Amino acid sequence: MIHALLVVAHGSRRAESNDEVRALTDRVRESAGDRFAAIDCAFLELAPPSIPDGLERLIERGATHVTVLPYFLAAGRHVAEDIPAEVEQTRTMHPNVTIEIAPYLGTSEAMPGLLLETAGTPG
Amino acid sequence: MIHALLVVAHGSRRAESNDEVRALTDRVRESAGDRFAAIDCAFLELAPPSIPDGLERLIERGATHVTVLPYFLAAGRHVAEDIPAEVEQTRTMHPNVTIEIAPYLGTSEAMPGLLLETAGTPG
Repeated sequence: MIHALLVVAHGSRRAESNDEVRALTDRVRESAGDRFAAIDCAFLELAPPSIPDGLERLIERGATHVTVLPYFLAAGRHVAEDIPAEVEQTRTMHPNVTIEIAPYLGTSEAMPGLLLETAGTPG
Repeated sequence: MIHALLVVAHGSRRAESNDEVRALTDRVRESAGDRFAAIDCAFLELAPPSIPDGLERLIERGATHVTVLPYFLAAGRHVAEDIPAEVEQTRTMHPNVTIEIAPYLGTSEAMPGLLLETAGTPG
């Protein structure tokens, strides 16, 4: 099994915001060691690649299992409906590839600690 | 100095999303120990309290220093312009209170690790 990770962000009209996601994905790749055979990002809207395109690229490179990670803080319509619908398109095209959607980032149990760390120490 | 923390989220039409932020803020409060005298949340739009209202409540409870933490993943207009503009209103009303805006959550150096943790271990 070749397992890949696709970080899915909303996408923005601001190129800098999309570049920020791409740079974060680079950092995730550096941190991941050999946990995933490939790590890419994709966008729900407003920036390339789309989720189906991002999945397709990973599958072309040999992925047989892809974890889709929603880079979202809240469980809105995007997380609950739109991302699953996009993923379903690729599942239909590639029934032999396992694609699972991980919990969205906001659910992380480490989030309170991350918030406190970002807030800094009261001076 | 009495130092408080205000977690600022975007706010959603979905009540569940706003409640998620409130529950997260409760968890932050539990994790924080005595680092901050008070920890609340506020919303840029679509849900109460607003940022000025949230700041006002903390100041009423004695805060002389407030750290505003943008619970945002990307540096869009909301982070760059809207939150600072709202904070400025309160600064004008309360010149003796120090209000600082922390980096937004997406800048955290721990974010790649959090993403990998949320993605789980390839099975």
